[in-house]
Amino acid sequence: MSQVLICEVGPRDGLQNAHQLMPTDAKKRWISALAAAGLKEIEVGSFVPPKLIPAMADTAEIVKHAITIPGIKVVALAPNLKGFQRALEAGAHKVTFPVSASRQHSEANVRMTPDQMVEEVRKCAEYPHPGVEIEGAVSTAFGCTMQGEVPDDDVVRIAAALAQFCDGVALADTVGYGNPAQVRRIFRRVKSEIGGKLEGAHFHNTRGLGLANSLAAYEEGVRAFDSSLGGLGGCPFAPGASGNVITEDLVFMFESMGVSTGIDLEKLMVARKLMVDVLPQEQVYGHFALAGVPKGFRAAA
Amino acid sequence: MSQVLICEVGPRDGLQNAHQLMPTDAKKRWISALAAAGLKEIEVGSFVPPKLIPAMADTAEIVKHAITIPGIKVVALAPNLKGFQRALEAGAHKVTFPVSASRQHSEANVRMTPDQMVEEVRKCAEYPHPGVEIEGAVSTAFGCTMQGEVPDDDVVRIAAALAQFCDGVALADTVGYGNPAQVRRIFRRVKSEIGGKLEGAHFHNTRGLGLANSLAAYEEGVRAFDSSLGGLGGCPFAPGASGNVITEDLVFMFESMGVSTGIDLEKLMVARKLMVDVLPQEQVYGHFALAGVPKGFRAAA
Repeated sequence: MSQVLICEVGPRDGLQNAHQLMPTDAKKRWISALAAAGLKEIEVGSFVPPKLIPAMADTAEIVKHAITIPGIKVVALAPNLKGFQRALEAGAHKVTFPVSASRQHSEANVRMTPDQMVEEVRKCAEYPHPGVEIEGAVSTAFGCTMQGEVPDDDVVRIAAALAQFCDGVALADTVGYGNPAQVRRIFRRVKSEIGGKLEGAHFHNTRGLGLANSLAAYEEGVRAFDSSLGGLGGCPFAPGASGNVITEDLVFMFESMGVSTGIDLEKLMVARKLMVDVLPQEQVYGHFALAGVPKGFRAAA
Repeated sequence: MSQVLICEVGPRDGLQNAHQLMPTDAKKRWISALAAAGLKEIEVGSFVPPKLIPAMADTAEIVKHAITIPGIKVVALAPNLKGFQRALEAGAHKVTFPVSASRQHSEANVRMTPDQMVEEVRKCAEYPHPGVEIEGAVSTAFGCTMQGEVPDDDVVRIAAALAQFCDGVALADTVGYGNPAQVRRIFRRVKSEIGGKLEGAHFHNTRGLGLANSLAAYEEGVRAFDSSLGGLGGCPFAPGASGNVITEDLVFMFESMGVSTGIDLEKLMVARKLMVDVLPQEQVYGHFALAGVPKGFRAAA
């Protein structure tokens, strides 16, 4: 029986792009509800300057809560050594570093070229971090709203550089530009370059291709997927377009295919309701939540 | 370069399940706008008793209009010989006959077993119909809201029976129960049974898997897909759930993969706007319509 690991990134990627702030207490309850639904990995926040992203100001407190929940791997995002140090101090189990494959996006966002960002991550990897996993996430790996096309070669080069000192590498379609043919092609190329170090896929559903892209990645051997409950987040560049792949639809797709996620769809709906109640004005997405399971549905064993 | 044929079924499957009636005149304008966007095949209505489905009462007039538009194949649905005769009289180019693979669904809907419905379609095939194409559509081929699971063997048996006297056979996920693994498995089995007679896939997006299922079918060699603009229609059994696969998202997926649809996305948005303006209370779906094309996007040649 096949299995996949789904990492819920709603508390980070979703809330970071939401129009409303979720109070710290509600975040804790939401993360607990996600863990109760069977999520084994949750990206709970990012260690960025609070002035830049106020929604992430309480990440240290959130990490400290989340690591008390048994059975989950607590992930935080950090863009640099300072953020990494804060993540270590809070007790995160895994830290993910975004490195944009788009030069234009990288320079605008972090005032560094992609190669300079790789060096920043190398510094973090060399900083003592006993027992803490480091992931390098190649962002804008399938296109960029500023630069447009991102050459496959750039993605492969960044991924190969990160693989030298990260525990794992993920490819992220940060702006929802990817398509299934491209997903197959790029994952295949990166895998042939870095083998088992290639771990995760992070897709956005901006143009509705989130599940199709996830399917393509799965068929290329990917077994770790980021997603967010209710497709929370949206994209500032595409008003009305949803955020990440929708967790509940992704879980339903895999379970119905006989691929086990370890996640209980009914309890996931409880976590969704909690989030929706706390963020009543936020647009949420997802078809599964409206339609429920088919008659006679059996989850994967 | 690969190509697919997309058949717009919104005027039939969409409007049949919509909460509002579209006036005859608006239907004509909508179908013309769809043709102008490059749709080569449009299912414009069904010849069923108007008392049962008032939205389809003007189908004869709609067919008569549609056949005056150059370059499109005009499809109508008929459930029996009487409907077929009306379709022929109106001048439809192709008639599709739904035959449910679910015994329970078939008996409830048409008071006939699936085998009896196959015989009804055979009668139609034997009725003179010079130059008119006949398609047998195996409905509830991926599950049934009444019966639950539909055995693959039943789908294969009905498809094989229809292939004896139909020009082509389609498999329909009438209620949106299908998943990509099942799509691959069933299309593969039916293809090995009836070969080139297997033509189309008709998916619903009830649980959000419409594009993923279309991708799976494409990779199994299917090159003809039904879909509806804006995912119009919904499903009476799943309030809030969308109807067919969303045409504009499907076109975007294929075009971005380099698979030509012959459809102009910009003109398709014109047809969407026309439909939305006429049916202001109808819920429409689709991510592409919100997000637009990626920067640097090139349609398939």
